[in-house]
Amino acid sequence: MEGNVKILMEELKNISELMLDLAYSSILFENKEIAEEVLLLYEKMEELEEKIYMHLFAASRGRKSERLISVMDVVECAKTVGSAAKQLSESVIQGKKLHSVIKEALKESEESIVKLIVEENSYLSNKKIGDLKIRTNTGVNVIAIKSGDKWIFDPDKNTNILPGDIIIGVGTSEGCEKLKVMAKSSEKI
Amino acid sequence: MEGNVKILMEELKNISELMLDLAYSSILFENKEIAEEVLLLYEKMEELEEKIYMHLFAASRGRKSERLISVMDVVECAKTVGSAAKQLSESVIQGKKLHSVIKEALKESEESIVKLIVEENSYLSNKKIGDLKIRTNTGVNVIAIKSGDKWIFDPDKNTNILPGDIIIGVGTSEGCEKLKVMAKSSEKI
Repeated sequence: MEGNVKILMEELKNISELMLDLAYSSILFENKEIAEEVLLLYEKMEELEEKIYMHLFAASRGRKSERLISVMDVVECAKTVGSAAKQLSESVIQGKKLHSVIKEALKESEESIVKLIVEENSYLSNKKIGDLKIRTNTGVNVIAIKSGDKWIFDPDKNTNILPGDIIIGVGTSEGCEKLKVMAKSSEKI
Repeated sequence: MEGNVKILMEELKNISELMLDLAYSSILFENKEIAEEVLLLYEKMEELEEKIYMHLFAASRGRKSERLISVMDVVECAKTVGSAAKQLSESVIQGKKLHSVIKEALKESEESIVKLIVEENSYLSNKKIGDLKIRTNTGVNVIAIKSGDKWIFDPDKNTNILPGDIIIGVGTSEGCEKLKVMAKSSEKI
């Protein structure tokens, strides 16, 4: 059971952090599609939570040990982060009018959010995320790509970046600038 | 007022994310000092929240507009993330016994946490974080440094890295490996 629970917990933590980044992005770009994805991820998160608890309780045979509770603490933490993201996204879906100060704060916070378009002959064009090693080389985490009409959320290393794609990433402002240049110019910087 | 609120909100968001990273680190390394810092940051967060609301309500002259509520939504989101981190850290402070599966999951999640020691003649030794551009060059966010007996949380670009320092960073496993090598070898990789 431990192996299963480990993988489920990793996934839960990853999803909660992705949700938060997506939620802030949805509010920054007033984008309901991104906000909807956060709500879908919340459902996935609830499924994961259920699976984790099923494994744990089966293994504990009814005993509620201190070590068991420690797992529940971590699950609860990830879940709370996800809930916060969900609530933020709901206000985007409701189309609430946003105060201008929000966008300014989100743009300039330490983890800034960037949206960029991949140009035809840019360094990023027609390459896989894994081959570009975007995160390692720029510090920017690509959380979503809009390719044509289709959104790809949480793209993995095998996701191909195509000319015309819109990339949403989270990173330092310096890293975001680096990625912006790579999306325009043919050279890696 | 807008400029003030913007800066306060940036700080609030940064703190909430730092708290979460520190909380997971405190549980991974079963470190009460890191957990205590999370509790201190929560107090700072409450002060920030109060200041933001004071500015907002002064500016609104009693009207509770939709745009005002949108700011409260974002503040609430950051606050909830911080609360989740606080709760996790409290269980570390209480010295709860942890299930082994937690450490394994935290080590291998997408945002993995690394602890490393800076060796005497390593590339990182006696350099400033800003000059090393650690985040941009490795994707790893340095969240804490233990220098001698003293902890430096959320070090900035002017923080000097000294031989013997213990660094705690959050990033991809690949980025963490890169930083580990830099902490050992004299060459940048």
